[in-house]
Amino acid sequence: MQRYKLTIEYNGASYVGWQKQLGQGQKTVQGVLEEAMYRLSQEKATIYGAGRTDSGVHALAQIAHCDLEKIFSVMNVWNGLNAWLSQARERVSILLVEEVDSDFHARFSAMRRHYLYRILNRRSPPALDRGLCWWFPHHVLDVEKMQEAANVLVGCHDFTTFRSVHCQAKSAVRTLEKLDITQNAEWIEIRASARSFLHRQIRSFVGSLVKVGWGAWRVLDLKLALDARNRAFCGMLAPACGLYFVGVDYPESGK
Amino acid sequence: MQRYKLTIEYNGASYVGWQKQLGQGQKTVQGVLEEAMYRLSQEKATIYGAGRTDSGVHALAQIAHCDLEKIFSVMNVWNGLNAWLSQARERVSILLVEEVDSDFHARFSAMRRHYLYRILNRRSPPALDRGLCWWFPHHVLDVEKMQEAANVLVGCHDFTTFRSVHCQAKSAVRTLEKLDITQNAEWIEIRASARSFLHRQIRSFVGSLVKVGWGAWRVLDLKLALDARNRAFCGMLAPACGLYFVGVDYPESGK
Repeated sequence: MQRYKLTIEYNGASYVGWQKQLGQGQKTVQGVLEEAMYRLSQEKATIYGAGRTDSGVHALAQIAHCDLEKIFSVMNVWNGLNAWLSQARERVSILLVEEVDSDFHARFSAMRRHYLYRILNRRSPPALDRGLCWWFPHHVLDVEKMQEAANVLVGCHDFTTFRSVHCQAKSAVRTLEKLDITQNAEWIEIRASARSFLHRQIRSFVGSLVKVGWGAWRVLDLKLALDARNRAFCGMLAPACGLYFVGVDYPESGK
Repeated sequence: MQRYKLTIEYNGASYVGWQKQLGQGQKTVQGVLEEAMYRLSQEKATIYGAGRTDSGVHALAQIAHCDLEKIFSVMNVWNGLNAWLSQARERVSILLVEEVDSDFHARFSAMRRHYLYRILNRRSPPALDRGLCWWFPHHVLDVEKMQEAANVLVGCHDFTTFRSVHCQAKSAVRTLEKLDITQNAEWIEIRASARSFLHRQIRSFVGSLVKVGWGAWRVLDLKLALDARNRAFCGMLAPACGLYFVGVDYPESGK
């Protein structure tokens, strides 16, 4: 048996999220990959992902692993999966396949996860980036104020305010390592890093930061929302189409 | 009568190019814009573009002008056009509307046109940028060699080798002001600037440079192709989906 590590890009618009859903007809990234793996190997292998992205969320570098009984070369897995995905017109691409030891686990070995959120802050709708960003035409956002508010969130906190009521994590305490906001003309990019995130945590952050950005909230309001530890105090949920899962750090340079 | 200057973004995949085609059912960017302008103003205004992009070519900032008999505010034209384009689900967006003097002409006043060509040079197909780049998986391209070859093309030359046999320009002599190639990981970007370009000139450049990039051509072969002044010597035509019209320079800072 051999364990393979997969690096995966996908356009989330075509899928109801990463995780396979039993008894439903909707397509998931995990489901599509398991089908491709079955076509390749005739084995019903489970594919474990590092981040169970929500419906509509994209990935530049989702990480997953799976085991195969038969031995395939790395190139055979890589080319075989992409051939099947292309033929099926799926919007999923395998960027890299690596052989890893059997103690590597895409989800449990992860030391840090990285996300990117893209906002298009202009009056005119996107013709090229439709579905690939949050188009926010209503107000010009003050990125400096947004960064000031973001700094309130960095560190170890109880993030109950910023997680979905359906979040299944036992504790809402997480350590947010980074929440950086940069602006390039009409594009605003928010980069978040942590060992792990709560359900809808980043989209809750972004929605609330945007309220600060247009002046509906002061930085203090965001601080009060955090301290309230109450979902009702969350500013706004940013749409899924702006969010990208961009990478995972593992011990020993990612193996 | 008032002349308006429009800055326009579009996804070329949805259109058979900029220019309106008489007696055919296929959609063009000019046709869609003239329809939108008619819905707004009830006037059959002609929209003149700075660059008549080919089928499938995108624009980040196409420039056009048109005249209206009735007087509309800039905001009314801007919002009105975008409202109609959005409603019709067109992949065209008006980025800016400005009032200009009646001697401004989007095409004839242009001093310099700028294009961008995007190549995705990796083994795996694009899941997110499908249709928005040239996916080139066959060889790793040597960008330094490509730049060396590009430098041969810069300047004033007879570009017969690098224009379509259907090109209607009287002369094939043009002055290429810039042909810069940059690489960022697996992305290669080629930026070209000139007063004007011949039909399919940039895609012919890019296809030939890519042959240099993978070693099928030496830099000398590109020089010989240029000197041949013969379309049959063109290396390859790069696909339309990687090409973007990105801007125009006008006298007096663009008005």
